[in-house]
Amino acid sequence: MYWSKTLIPTSREVPADADIISHQLLIRAGLVRRISAGVYDWLPLGWKSMQKIMDIIRQEMNAIDAQEVHLPALLPAELWKQTGRYTDYGPLLFKLKDRKGSEMILGPTHEECVTELMKACVSSHKQLPLTLYQIQGKFRDEARPRNGLLRVREFFMKDAYSFHSSLESLHETYQAMYQAYVRIFKRCGINAVPVEADSGPIGGDASHEFICPCDAGEDIIVRAVDGSYAANLERAGNARQLSAADAPVGNTGASSRVSTPGASSIADVCNFLKVPQSVLIKTLVYSRQSDDGPRWLVACVRGDHDINEAKLKKIAGNVELADEPAARAAGFTIGFTGPHIVNVLPAQLVIDPDALLLTDAVTGDNEVDVHLTGFNWREHIQEDKLHTARIADIRNITESDKAPNGAALVFSKGIELGHVFKLGTKYSDALAATFLDDRQKSSSMIMGCYGIGPGRIMVAALETLSDADGIRWPMSIAPCHVLITPIKYDGQARQVADNLHTELSQLGMDVLVDDRDQRPGVKFKDADLIGIPVRLVLGDKGLAAGQVEVKLRHMKQAEMLPLEGIARHIADMVNKSRSLPD
Amino acid sequence: MYWSKTLIPTSREVPADADIISHQLLIRAGLVRRISAGVYDWLPLGWKSMQKIMDIIRQEMNAIDAQEVHLPALLPAELWKQTGRYTDYGPLLFKLKDRKGSEMILGPTHEECVTELMKACVSSHKQLPLTLYQIQGKFRDEARPRNGLLRVREFFMKDAYSFHSSLESLHETYQAMYQAYVRIFKRCGINAVPVEADSGPIGGDASHEFICPCDAGEDIIVRAVDGSYAANLERAGNARQLSAADAPVGNTGASSRVSTPGASSIADVCNFLKVPQSVLIKTLVYSRQSDDGPRWLVACVRGDHDINEAKLKKIAGNVELADEPAARAAGFTIGFTGPHIVNVLPAQLVIDPDALLLTDAVTGDNEVDVHLTGFNWREHIQEDKLHTARIADIRNITESDKAPNGAALVFSKGIELGHVFKLGTKYSDALAATFLDDRQKSSSMIMGCYGIGPGRIMVAALETLSDADGIRWPMSIAPCHVLITPIKYDGQARQVADNLHTELSQLGMDVLVDDRDQRPGVKFKDADLIGIPVRLVLGDKGLAAGQVEVKLRHMKQAEMLPLEGIARHIADMVNKSRSLPD
Repeated sequence: MYWSKTLIPTSREVPADADIISHQLLIRAGLVRRISAGVYDWLPLGWKSMQKIMDIIRQEMNAIDAQEVHLPALLPAELWKQTGRYTDYGPLLFKLKDRKGSEMILGPTHEECVTELMKACVSSHKQLPLTLYQIQGKFRDEARPRNGLLRVREFFMKDAYSFHSSLESLHETYQAMYQAYVRIFKRCGINAVPVEADSGPIGGDASHEFICPCDAGEDIIVRAVDGSYAANLERAGNARQLSAADAPVGNTGASSRVSTPGASSIADVCNFLKVPQSVLIKTLVYSRQSDDGPRWLVACVRGDHDINEAKLKKIAGNVELADEPAARAAGFTIGFTGPHIVNVLPAQLVIDPDALLLTDAVTGDNEVDVHLTGFNWREHIQEDKLHTARIADIRNITESDKAPNGAALVFSKGIELGHVFKLGTKYSDALAATFLDDRQKSSSMIMGCYGIGPGRIMVAALETLSDADGIRWPMSIAPCHVLITPIKYDGQARQVADNLHTELSQLGMDVLVDDRDQRPGVKFKDADLIGIPVRLVLGDKGLAAGQVEVKLRHMKQAEMLPLEGIARHIADMVNKSRSLPD
Repeated sequence: MYWSKTLIPTSREVPADADIISHQLLIRAGLVRRISAGVYDWLPLGWKSMQKIMDIIRQEMNAIDAQEVHLPALLPAELWKQTGRYTDYGPLLFKLKDRKGSEMILGPTHEECVTELMKACVSSHKQLPLTLYQIQGKFRDEARPRNGLLRVREFFMKDAYSFHSSLESLHETYQAMYQAYVRIFKRCGINAVPVEADSGPIGGDASHEFICPCDAGEDIIVRAVDGSYAANLERAGNARQLSAADAPVGNTGASSRVSTPGASSIADVCNFLKVPQSVLIKTLVYSRQSDDGPRWLVACVRGDHDINEAKLKKIAGNVELADEPAARAAGFTIGFTGPHIVNVLPAQLVIDPDALLLTDAVTGDNEVDVHLTGFNWREHIQEDKLHTARIADIRNITESDKAPNGAALVFSKGIELGHVFKLGTKYSDALAATFLDDRQKSSSMIMGCYGIGPGRIMVAALETLSDADGIRWPMSIAPCHVLITPIKYDGQARQVADNLHTELSQLGMDVLVDDRDQRPGVKFKDADLIGIPVRLVLGDKGLAAGQVEVKLRHMKQAEMLPLEGIARHIADMVNKSRSLPD
């Protein structure tokens, strides 16, 4: 491959909208180009790397007997209506109509499509288990596309779906997939930490995310300092199990109403009352639509804790923070709600264990600019209301919490690269994808699903491996292995460059020759920027002495090596470095 | 690969909606599955073959220094508005809006997108020529999706675009692309005839289609019996050049109005008048929208000829057959229009040379159920109207016409597999994609575009190479090379099957083992249906004698060969057969 015959639009300038390193490098090294918000052209170098990432994924999927298919992007809305996701997926779903007015969507994922396929083609337990996968473009109408390839509207995904006649079989495939993921990220040269994620309908150890720790990431990983535990923030919780009966008896009778004029935040209230946030009960009003209007839910956590909506939704279904005007109309004094509002308004009470253990707490008194001190659950909540309250972990864990095994915790940011998930029968139930077991009994197929974002693997590599001069590709996913840079592409240098290009290509290397009529300084700067792992510099002086300069992108120093036998030497080095590390 | 671990839903039944062989086989052999009209799932076997077709295309594109990219499916409508195709493309274009209300389309092709990319990245003649290609999903909202993969709404396309600073450079790349196409189809084992196609804006020898002759095709190829000429029907024409001055003088004065009650077709009229269709002038009314209402066009061909709208549009722009009510309101007696209507209504007259040469012809007399006999151009058309008439080839050629070189012609049907096209500057003009030449003068980049439908290559293989029992894959694009069929998958047969699977895979063969618990008859029928080129049958008796049965799908007879060394023997055979034929 010759630079002059391809399109590598490098740039010295940092794009104005690019906050994170990977976004800057993607643009500056000419890997991608933005065409509209969250939609990108893949240019030759970027696409070559993507193809290598996809090939690694493909090899590891095939190695565990997953079968590659290709499902369409254009899906009938009807299928998504059957599982409820046509509405549940919300505005993230791209919707359109065809010329006959039929409703269609652009697939952001393919559970419905693949389940419908299996329903049509598989009827017996003898045909199970079966794992299908694809590497394919997905569409998601993000509210705020940003951070280059991190939050995009059209992107690639490897999505795999497994189908089983038993939980044991699902578990076996899940384990195989988990191990394949470990190999994939390792082969791509990326650090990916498997963390426990939302457990889903099957419960237990049913979901893991693979996260590359780095500051540009949008996910938070919670890890035990001793490495004994890792989970994402949505999942990480404490193991404490309490019930309403555990509500302590406080200093009964000492409560009083306090006017707190103008104190609109928890910090304000605590400053005003000179108490720590940890004695406050934060009370938030949620609602869920039902046929006869909104159902209300009052959620309580300690003032220094944050509600975790993923946990709340697992307990209470698809609730959302209440619409303020509607909540006010129903009698809630938003901003000053206290748990005792459930004594007078019909609402489900949900209490986090740490909030339940407070005595003589501070909380809103259901009136503007008024708080209540000396709040105690047994004193201020009617007995039947307290009795029917749900006590459950509904908050984000903090760094001062402990892992379930008691170990100290540390938080870090990261990029989610992949996810393995025991789905259960959600989709096969909804679409009636059943099989007959060996006694001719019909059951829903049990499913797992498994995703990887190849673009995010690239982002992780750029974020974590680059230096101030540019990209440093892992050999396995580098667009090219070797960059040949003649100081001037003519005379002997040209001949040597062309010969090396041929020879190295024949040895299976991907080679780029910088044959541009550019100053050496420009060529070297571009070389560092695009980050090809091995650079061979051909200068007149060296060539006269039968030598070439070999410079590895991740090393400071270059060395002069004999031209004789250099191709074989380089190929051996590349092959060693691109094979699976131990 | 083991049959029990993959998804090959074979079927004995011919699907009700499948008229053509390829459509039947695609479904019956479990290669694809329809999800909605013109939208298909690619299943494991079909997808394996598609990947091989795509790899062959990729190799040949890379060999001529085309650079692979990947452009998005989701394109901003604005870009298509700039070239006018947002409206010109009509209802074939899938349109949608994102959550912010921005108009987007799903790309049916990528001229705009790639031109915009080149505009942004290339500014100097030194960066040209450059050829970019992609293999990617396209979307087209067909009015009547049909014939399996022949007319679909979501499909794969290899589309390449070349950019040049001179016509010579375009010509060079065009030739290289043409030769690459010849190699691609040959390597895929498909007969593809290059035919002259619509010449486009550059004129001359500027466009070729590659067509696989077969009855299921929707295109018509016009070929000289001596092989000296081949064109598609839209393009094929006679070289006769006439002008209005060539209109002959007829038997002046012998014309008369004839009542032709109930004769509504040309055949009816000719039966009624007892004249051949070749003395009739067929007159059709077309219109084109303009700011002040429709502009009318009256097109005349001989009664036994058909108007070719592609030719008409090249002369008259984007005209369409007139809307009947609108044409009647304007004064046209649709069904009985004669050319002399231009004497009284404002309309452009276009006459095909063969119609111009008629004397004493029959034509409608612009009144219901009335025809005119003895029509002559000089007599019945006002002199200034005849003078301003366009005389041009606007009809389909027929088998009784001659090739431009005088050779006799033969028609046949075919499937269009690919198209190479000298585009010129249509898109670079519209999007201002310019470059500076060596004298710093700015010009629009000159473009070529080049498409192949990988799915149509598969269709062509299925249509032309299958037999009554099923598919006969060319080795190069077969999903697997070898099918191992143990009569019963247990005992020695199982062990031999597993060993052969391992050994052949290590030799680079793609192998499928039919490990199903099925009767031999079912296995053999399925084997013929899915058409893997080499079948190894493992039976107890043969194995006891150290032999396996080797059956080639395209041969009637099987032969028994020693098990010893069979893997090497088969691999040699496969490698010989999948390499580029001479």
